Amino acid sequence: MDDINDIVYSIINDYEQKRTIDRMDIFNKPDKNIIIDMVDKLIRIVYPGYYREKNYKVINVQNNISVIIEDVLYNLKKQIEIVLNNTESDRGSKEETEVIAEKISTEFLKTIPKVREYVETDVQAAFEGDPAAKSREEIIFCYPGLYAITVQRLAHELYLLHVPLIPRIMTEVAHSQTGIDIHPGATIGKYFFIDHGTGIVVGETTVIGEHVKVYQGVTLGALSTRGGQNLRDKKRHPTIEDYVTIYSGASILGGETVIGNNVVIGGNAFITTSVTAGTKVSVKNPELQLMKDDNSIQKMDLEQDEPWFYVI
Amino acid sequence: MDDINDIVYSIINDYEQKRTIDRMDIFNKPDKNIIIDMVDKLIRIVYPGYYREKNYKVINVQNNISVIIEDVLYNLKKQIEIVLNNTESDRGSKEETEVIAEKISTEFLKTIPKVREYVETDVQAAFEGDPAAKSREEIIFCYPGLYAITVQRLAHELYLLHVPLIPRIMTEVAHSQTGIDIHPGATIGKYFFIDHGTGIVVGETTVIGEHVKVYQGVTLGALSTRGGQNLRDKKRHPTIEDYVTIYSGASILGGETVIGNNVVIGGNAFITTSVTAGTKVSVKNPELQLMKDDNSIQKMDLEQDEPWFYVI
Amino acid sequence: MDDINDIVYSIINDYEQKRTIDRMDIFNKPDKNIIIDMVDKLIRIVYPGYYREKNYKVINVQNNISVIIEDVLYNLKKQIEIVLNNTESDRGSKEETEVIAEKISTEFLKTIPKVREYVETDVQAAFEGDPAAKSREEIIFCYPGLYAITVQRLAHELYLLHVPLIPRIMTEVAHSQTGIDIHPGATIGKYFFIDHGTGIVVGETTVIGEHVKVYQGVTLGALSTRGGQNLRDKKRHPTIEDYVTIYSGASILGGETVIGNNVVIGGNAFITTSVTAGTKVSVKNPELQLMKDDNSIQKMDLEQDEPWFYVI
Repeated sequence: MDDINDIVYSIINDYEQKRTIDRMDIFNKPDKNIIIDMVDKLIRIVYPGYYREKNYKVINVQNNISVIIEDVLYNLKKQIEIVLNNTESDRGSKEETEVIAEKISTEFLKTIPKVREYVETDVQAAFEGDPAAKSREEIIFCYPGLYAITVQRLAHELYLLHVPLIPRIMTEVAHSQTGIDIHPGATIGKYFFIDHGTGIVVGETTVIGEHVKVYQGVTLGALSTRGGQNLRDKKRHPTIEDYVTIYSGASILGGETVIGNNVVIGGNAFITTSVTAGTKVSVKNPELQLMKDDNSIQKMDLEQDEPWFYVI
Repeated sequence: MDDINDIVYSIINDYEQKRTIDRMDIFNKPDKNIIIDMVDKLIRIVYPGYYREKNYKVINVQNNISVIIEDVLYNLKKQIEIVLNNTESDRGSKEETEVIAEKISTEFLKTIPKVREYVETDVQAAFEGDPAAKSREEIIFCYPGLYAITVQRLAHELYLLHVPLIPRIMTEVAHSQTGIDIHPGATIGKYFFIDHGTGIVVGETTVIGEHVKVYQGVTLGALSTRGGQNLRDKKRHPTIEDYVTIYSGASILGGETVIGNNVVIGGNAFITTSVTAGTKVSVKNPELQLMKDDNSIQKMDLEQDEPWFYVI
Repeated sequence: MDDINDIVYSIINDYEQKRTIDRMDIFNKPDKNIIIDMVDKLIRIVYPGYYREKNYKVINVQNNISVIIEDVLYNLKKQIEIVLNNTESDRGSKEETEVIAEKISTEFLKTIPKVREYVETDVQAAFEGDPAAKSREEIIFCYPGLYAITVQRLAHELYLLHVPLIPRIMTEVAHSQTGIDIHPGATIGKYFFIDHGTGIVVGETTVIGEHVKVYQGVTLGALSTRGGQNLRDKKRHPTIEDYVTIYSGASILGGETVIGNNVVIGGNAFITTSVTAGTKVSVKNPELQLMKDDNSIQKMDLEQDEPWFYVI
């Protein structure tokens, strides 16, 4: 037992070093569990009827939604107060922060119909793009891409309202669920379709147009980060224009890289310069070598007469 | 407060547009939480003793299993009724649907011993294939691949019974947990081993033989989906025969692509044509360039004298 | 109803085969839910103030931490007893095992300050390395890489104390949350930074120095596992020295592969031989082909005059 006491004291003492990880003023920290719960409730607001609480009565939809919205508003306001007080000390008095937090929360909730208008187009795009989709409902219930996009669209609205920390916690909730990592700063147009999705990374300053399709393992990223914190707030990620399809494993990098309308980027392509509208880009695949049972080696004839194949 | 009311009404009004996302008839929707719970219970039935509820007494295994099975049966039947009523309006009367749902649920549960026979072989394959596995228990407790395969094998049985929506919700539960995305339509033989697994995608019409090993990031996918919904029900994904190993990051694409017995596909290979039995396929890796501290540039000697290396 | 009974009996009978998956002696199995809860509590000990329980009062930090530590100690000891009794039958009597389990649990908790010293450097490395990071708090709250590293550093300490099974269950909890799969056996130096992270695999015998950065989709793996269980306990994974950066999608393979100080490995590189200190390795990207609207085909000028670009 003395041993336990020793351990407890050695850890408590270790907290005294005042490093980043030693901060114990928890009332000045956002509460991740509350934010996770808020994401759930927001999803329920965006897709009424597809997600439900126990005892949810259809007859009370209006009351029920009203309760959920008030809950989101209350908790969001509190969390925003905390992050504003905490991360931007020059924001003004506690009272001023309260007023700002209330205003931001309200502004945010006013964007819900717009977010819903966008996600309806995302559902449509997924249904039209995927032969494995048997119904639009299957997409809403099952497609991790739609979930990740919905959370990002919500987080993006908070990001535009200059809320620190919370938007990123929200998109990381989706990242953890889906393997799809879209920064809340990314600007994404209507009819966005992500298939499978695991491994997708979309960076903070990415701009994506309408009717864009992206498959698993795609990176829309930055070039070297040698600059570290000095690069903050610079456009570091690409611009993707309308009707672009990016097949699995492709990387498109750099803040000055623009992928024009109707471009198709083949699987595993690695793109660091702009591509003009209407172009199909395909990787000349690395040569394959075959070894037979008798240990003879030959090159594989790829029969790549139609080089525009894409990974799904 | 007026502001809140305004927001509530604007959202409620937004639901009136009758778009896909506006459907509020929640009693006609499957309940995702019930299906998630059902997956948990099925896993407990498949691996008795490896997963447990609180207060689970060994002495009552039979009663306990009986309770869990009845619970699965009850909930599955209800969910099947809902999806049948909802997605296939020509299915007949409510009473007929109930009978069909009961029959399907019972048929499904009868497949459990077969599923268990298969997953036992999967455990065996993982133990033999992975030097990092210290025991078979470690595989059952820790390997996300085994979990994903087990859920897929269960979902596949429901898929064969023509249940819409629910099988895909089940495999997406596993996808979310593991990053492994296997469509419930895929047919998978015994002794299937997935190592690491994150990023794996196996498409709906894939057929996989026995003793197949697949590593992280592998796609068994379709070629271009330009056809969208027109391609539904066509074989769009490859056939993998027995004793095939597919190393990490490889893509094998297309419904007419057949990978023969005993083939080895090297890491990052991109395959769109059939490969005959007994062949080892290895990527001639992209040339590497080296830059030294003095800025001299040279090509890297890959020393690829044994080209058949594979990523694990 | 007879049907249900038949199903129950057919499944109960199926358990009688005594295969690996038929083991029902659940009191001899570790409890995954307890271990998941333990990981949560350990994270709370490592980052006091960043994670909290309801009703956590700041005024009681010391009592609170004391309660959490005792809880971890109690449960860890129990779980260690179970796995020792279970997996190593030559360990001695039940009483001896209890003593060993207590000793290991205590030793493990004594390593917490060291683990905290390391993760503080990981936070610092992430902040300096990522222009998208607005604050150190954002890293602690949001970065899945930091979570995965923290869990691995804890699991590694148990691994060094020769505890079977539990360390791997712990890192799989993190893998499931983050898509980052770091084996508890891997040795990792200070200032380790993982960005994005989905798809990363770090093998059991990997050794990583200080100030190493790793991006999404990187594999630090073994060469062919043809040897299966025979390769156990051999060094099968690479050594990465200090100040190395490995960009996304790169694979570094083999137990004799050493990546020297200050090396930079470009995105998608595939490395199976050692690289000397100070070298930058970049992939000569696969040639791209462009097809324009008029079906003319041309090669893409990559303008790769600065070949040292990296994927982020």
